[in-house]
Amino acid sequence: MSFQNPVFIPGPTNMPEAIRQACYMPTIDHRSPIFGSILHPCLEGVRKVLKSESAHIFIFPATGTGGWETALSNTLSPGDGVLAARNGMFSHRWIDMCQRHGLDVQVIETPWGEGIAADRYEEILRGDRDHKIKVVLATHNETATGVKSDIAAVRRALDAAKHPALLFVDGVSSIGSMDFRFDEWGVDVAVTGSQKGFMLPAGLAIVGFSEKAMQATESAGLPRTFFDVHDMAKGYANNAFPYTPPVGLMNGLKLSLETLLDEGLENVFARHTRIATGVRHAVKAWGLELCAVSPEVYSDSVSAIRTPEGFNATDIVTRAADEYGMAFGVGLGEVAGKVFRIGHLGSLTDAMMLSGLGVAEMVMVDLGLDVKLGSGVAAAQEYYRHGANKANKAAA
Amino acid sequence: MSFQNPVFIPGPTNMPEAIRQACYMPTIDHRSPIFGSILHPCLEGVRKVLKSESAHIFIFPATGTGGWETALSNTLSPGDGVLAARNGMFSHRWIDMCQRHGLDVQVIETPWGEGIAADRYEEILRGDRDHKIKVVLATHNETATGVKSDIAAVRRALDAAKHPALLFVDGVSSIGSMDFRFDEWGVDVAVTGSQKGFMLPAGLAIVGFSEKAMQATESAGLPRTFFDVHDMAKGYANNAFPYTPPVGLMNGLKLSLETLLDEGLENVFARHTRIATGVRHAVKAWGLELCAVSPEVYSDSVSAIRTPEGFNATDIVTRAADEYGMAFGVGLGEVAGKVFRIGHLGSLTDAMMLSGLGVAEMVMVDLGLDVKLGSGVAAAQEYYRHGANKANKAAA
Amino acid sequence: MSFQNPVFIPGPTNMPEAIRQACYMPTIDHRSPIFGSILHPCLEGVRKVLKSESAHIFIFPATGTGGWETALSNTLSPGDGVLAARNGMFSHRWIDMCQRHGLDVQVIETPWGEGIAADRYEEILRGDRDHKIKVVLATHNETATGVKSDIAAVRRALDAAKHPALLFVDGVSSIGSMDFRFDEWGVDVAVTGSQKGFMLPAGLAIVGFSEKAMQATESAGLPRTFFDVHDMAKGYANNAFPYTPPVGLMNGLKLSLETLLDEGLENVFARHTRIATGVRHAVKAWGLELCAVSPEVYSDSVSAIRTPEGFNATDIVTRAADEYGMAFGVGLGEVAGKVFRIGHLGSLTDAMMLSGLGVAEMVMVDLGLDVKLGSGVAAAQEYYRHGANKANKAAA
Amino acid sequence: MSFQNPVFIPGPTNMPEAIRQACYMPTIDHRSPIFGSILHPCLEGVRKVLKSESAHIFIFPATGTGGWETALSNTLSPGDGVLAARNGMFSHRWIDMCQRHGLDVQVIETPWGEGIAADRYEEILRGDRDHKIKVVLATHNETATGVKSDIAAVRRALDAAKHPALLFVDGVSSIGSMDFRFDEWGVDVAVTGSQKGFMLPAGLAIVGFSEKAMQATESAGLPRTFFDVHDMAKGYANNAFPYTPPVGLMNGLKLSLETLLDEGLENVFARHTRIATGVRHAVKAWGLELCAVSPEVYSDSVSAIRTPEGFNATDIVTRAADEYGMAFGVGLGEVAGKVFRIGHLGSLTDAMMLSGLGVAEMVMVDLGLDVKLGSGVAAAQEYYRHGANKANKAAA
Repeated sequence: MSFQNPVFIPGPTNMPEAIRQACYMPTIDHRSPIFGSILHPCLEGVRKVLKSESAHIFIFPATGTGGWETALSNTLSPGDGVLAARNGMFSHRWIDMCQRHGLDVQVIETPWGEGIAADRYEEILRGDRDHKIKVVLATHNETATGVKSDIAAVRRALDAAKHPALLFVDGVSSIGSMDFRFDEWGVDVAVTGSQKGFMLPAGLAIVGFSEKAMQATESAGLPRTFFDVHDMAKGYANNAFPYTPPVGLMNGLKLSLETLLDEGLENVFARHTRIATGVRHAVKAWGLELCAVSPEVYSDSVSAIRTPEGFNATDIVTRAADEYGMAFGVGLGEVAGKVFRIGHLGSLTDAMMLSGLGVAEMVMVDLGLDVKLGSGVAAAQEYYRHGANKANKAAA
Repeated sequence: MSFQNPVFIPGPTNMPEAIRQACYMPTIDHRSPIFGSILHPCLEGVRKVLKSESAHIFIFPATGTGGWETALSNTLSPGDGVLAARNGMFSHRWIDMCQRHGLDVQVIETPWGEGIAADRYEEILRGDRDHKIKVVLATHNETATGVKSDIAAVRRALDAAKHPALLFVDGVSSIGSMDFRFDEWGVDVAVTGSQKGFMLPAGLAIVGFSEKAMQATESAGLPRTFFDVHDMAKGYANNAFPYTPPVGLMNGLKLSLETLLDEGLENVFARHTRIATGVRHAVKAWGLELCAVSPEVYSDSVSAIRTPEGFNATDIVTRAADEYGMAFGVGLGEVAGKVFRIGHLGSLTDAMMLSGLGVAEMVMVDLGLDVKLGSGVAAAQEYYRHGANKANKAAA
Repeated sequence: MSFQNPVFIPGPTNMPEAIRQACYMPTIDHRSPIFGSILHPCLEGVRKVLKSESAHIFIFPATGTGGWETALSNTLSPGDGVLAARNGMFSHRWIDMCQRHGLDVQVIETPWGEGIAADRYEEILRGDRDHKIKVVLATHNETATGVKSDIAAVRRALDAAKHPALLFVDGVSSIGSMDFRFDEWGVDVAVTGSQKGFMLPAGLAIVGFSEKAMQATESAGLPRTFFDVHDMAKGYANNAFPYTPPVGLMNGLKLSLETLLDEGLENVFARHTRIATGVRHAVKAWGLELCAVSPEVYSDSVSAIRTPEGFNATDIVTRAADEYGMAFGVGLGEVAGKVFRIGHLGSLTDAMMLSGLGVAEMVMVDLGLDVKLGSGVAAAQEYYRHGANKANKAAA
Repeated sequence: MSFQNPVFIPGPTNMPEAIRQACYMPTIDHRSPIFGSILHPCLEGVRKVLKSESAHIFIFPATGTGGWETALSNTLSPGDGVLAARNGMFSHRWIDMCQRHGLDVQVIETPWGEGIAADRYEEILRGDRDHKIKVVLATHNETATGVKSDIAAVRRALDAAKHPALLFVDGVSSIGSMDFRFDEWGVDVAVTGSQKGFMLPAGLAIVGFSEKAMQATESAGLPRTFFDVHDMAKGYANNAFPYTPPVGLMNGLKLSLETLLDEGLENVFARHTRIATGVRHAVKAWGLELCAVSPEVYSDSVSAIRTPEGFNATDIVTRAADEYGMAFGVGLGEVAGKVFRIGHLGSLTDAMMLSGLGVAEMVMVDLGLDVKLGSGVAAAQEYYRHGANKANKAAA
């Protein structure tokens, strides 16, 4: 594995030099006002990236999984009802966490490759007359399948059913890369991490709570201390954490947020769409299919690519690493061996993407797949060359 | 606050350049074998630092507080009995966490400044005929008061009482700086973090579990997912984490462990003792007293220094930061305003310590305390100049 | 210009992270023995890269141009004869320097794109009965035209003519990337810099002197102090420089040399040949020609590519930078506007090279050249995929 | 030698983290406009630090010694007369360089420890009726003896003698740390380097030329290419260098200049004066004398401290390094073994200085000198504690 090549895993992403340097700061006293000058811009910047006016933002020294646990343990009690769709490994894991925390989860099994079905949510919610369902879970972007779901539609389902359940959204691989509208979609808890759209090392769970979610914390019976949002809020009010904060990572987050907001969120999203579209053109030129079943669910942060029957897609990932020093993502769970994944989020340029596509082609040819060298690259080039300029500069 | 001066807070500590650089690595694929080559040396190295042959080591992307929660939630069920001494802010917080997780804690109130009383443990354990107490908590080094407790004595108390309770030890501010003997003391869970003796940024909870503690996990009823040690163990067996690992920090931990083991643990401890003793000589020269009541409980990683009645010790910390750009620690909880703390752990030399003592003197004189400029420095110098050489070089 | 893309200028090259970090060391006392532990491995490592047993190595805080001046000013007196071929901008500049230092240069004008003509050297040297020519200059690799010359042949010319002139070789863009044989070729002074094969920032002039060249210093009348090799040698004998040494850069050079020698020089050269051959396949697929007239003069570190008559090749470089954030090299001097250059030396992988070729194609299509998207990439891929493995790993 | 302690050599200085990081940038195309955005702020910033409206600034990839050679070789011809005072090792070396370049130097021997005698300059210049003296050399701050000279007085001497000679000033260890007035003092060439007041690694020679000096370049007969200011000026006009520029170091210089100018030059000088005064108080408390003979020549960037007869001052430096991991400067030339030097320039705080003084005391006591531990520290503390605040913060 060469450290020189960019990575094409769906997170952690490539890191811009300046952001990496910002993480790498000398020790400061985390009880001094300097820390406040890092903390508060982080909270405000995350709120802007979530497109929220008033969400309560919490940052934990953990990962997205810790963010999920924060969401559940601060708002729910054992036995509470949860409604969730399972359409990939990450929605599966969140469901599994609910079960391990004694929640009563109703699972909408959804084919891996499809987005979550808002109509099924609505149907079930309408049937839940006693409002046993306290929380609806939705995975905005299934990292395992490269599938984006329509969160606004889930909100409409809740509203149509006049159901008071909270809406929790896993935005780990979407927030900061794809459009996310906390307020407009009526999200109650949004969860993400540092290592995707924020282009940082793993190590921060980043969550936003609505007022309604904050109210739910009052009666939540699940135990929690490390992930307690009230301890955190009390800390923030004193420019502090309830324990030692990850100062360097947060200093990096501060710069990451400045960078994203300076580029402009819509430009950031457009850049992700452009790079992703180039990848999709390449996939088509290779004669392959995405795991994602239709354009409206195509993810702009990761593409899961199906390989032909009888071929082990994981071999592509292994050979790319061993022979070409390049990292792609394997298939997980139900689609293990059936797909390989190209991450195309975070700090990336069209030029970098071409190197990823170029290596993928070489590997597929090496392994005997009927793919033409240069074909996917050419398809991406044709697309990219019409949209380069601004975004590449902005990503500098 | 100047970034040029060393910090004298009791963690996060000053970081050696090379270790800081090791944390600052480019993104790699955390599912590739490279990660295994970082992970396993970390686990083995931590085991050595704990002086254990067979402890199960777990590293979480969290802090010491997360390590406490790992200890409790993996081994206990709601209502289980816990015995703990409270002799400072950090033992207090662990007790508080037990209570918030529905455990039945029996608290031995202990004057802040004293070590935990093994005889009181023994007495209570002898009385617990039904073995309702499942776990005994002991804080090895109370960071709030600069007090070291005798863990071997707590083990002897358990043995004398023939009590089967598990022994959980908070070694956050001792492990890697002061002698810690997991196997010899019969520790069942040891908890520490990255930002103290390991000289890293905050962001890793590091725990060791004995076989007996692992057995307790089988029946533990507290919910957990993020901090589940079995998920973690399963991950490790595949060179992986159950979620995205904090690769850079662990790369730093790997180097930190190499550095500590190359210096030799006994040399590391001796260096901490030497620097701490210099500080204690200075305190005496200033005519002040430690919060720690007697030499056998003096901590080698932090000194809490009592200021005269009527004087607000926190003013020292504030003025040092504002006027001299230097960070000391404030008093916490019961001793807030009564003590200020000098951290002297991690990456530190005699020369650096002199600058800390020198600034402390200036501040105390500025604030009207009856302290002679140069007096504490001279006392420390006299001590240091007889023991310099080897340790300073080793710490390079 | 995006800092995320690799550069494809013919130096400074992309820098491996570890080497860059080695340059970035804290201040040390350059009069302490630590400096000796950096200096001497540098001298020994450079000697090995030059394939010399006994060359006197000197490292100046300067650039290759300073290396040229070191060569001339330490060995020659005003009016001394120099014989040199001019076949590109860099040979031109060295000739210009000779003239400005009052030397009597006889110039063999050579078409830009051709290697230097050893037979012309022989002819002229045979005619120089009085041995007025004191030094023969030869540019091993003309960075401006991507042309490699045969230094062994120049040595044979000197020998055939039984001429005692010294042989000075500019190896700035060859040493560390292409085979260089100081002893075997009878080189008297070899000149290079830090920013090419050594993958460091610019800032070091690195030169090797033969015994014969050292003897010439005794009678050299050109003034010199900063570039005096005897001052330098005296300094080295005391682990020092005659002035403040560039410690960090030399610490980087030490690691660079270790990295190159660990990979194995022949492997390093083979890697450069492989990557360069892929580029040449791409150029052919584009229907373009190299400036270099024939395969035996093709450079493995840089390719200068001719564009069609009436097309301004510099537009490619400008558009690549402006629209795609990628740096190529412009044509210089006689070939300005007629060629653009792709640097392919230093820290580079096949995958990175594909991104360079991919962007070059997009730019050429954008500018209306008759080039097919993906064509050059495919040609390079076909070549690279048969030779990947070892070298990519070694370059990690 | 510990990398953790600050250095107290008179340059290279301790480097602020941010400036060090600025040097450590990835490779960019040095022919792209990005380089212009680094170069021009450097030139403008240096001009401001020199307090000049119109000096021509040149930055070479070299050291201060290269700056001296730039000054001489661009303005003089062999045989030209030069007048210079020798009062330390660095003035000696510049004189030596003149002689090696065939200049006719008239040396005013001056006791080491005294400033240069403007009246002697005037006397000699008055006697030089034919104006054979083309250049007057003056070392603003003799780094070897810690002696500052009065450049304004030298200018008055030239004016009083109505002599047209150019005034060249070595400001290597003064510029950026002590007041320097290029225009007001009528300086014609000022020379400095990157590794002193600019707090950067060694590797840049920085020079300023007056209009009159630029005119002198027209007739200068000394050969030069690497150090040619006209080549450099031509390069700058195109955002370029005549050869590969040291981009990272210049990026660091840009930030250094911003940092100094943001702090305010007068504040920077006052900070140096304050820290230096504390050192001088300590020296007095130790019962020792400075090499500098009187207060008006005390340097604010370095103190050379005389040790008692029969004592080898170099032992202090050796023991400090070996036993305490701390770097001081040895005596050079005439004062070798008679003085040791404490550098107190660049990135330094009062607190850091106390650690230097504290170690110096321990070493002197170790070596049997009659010095009281804590005495010098206390004297410095007493001084520092009345002037802390602003300057320490500004240096953050």
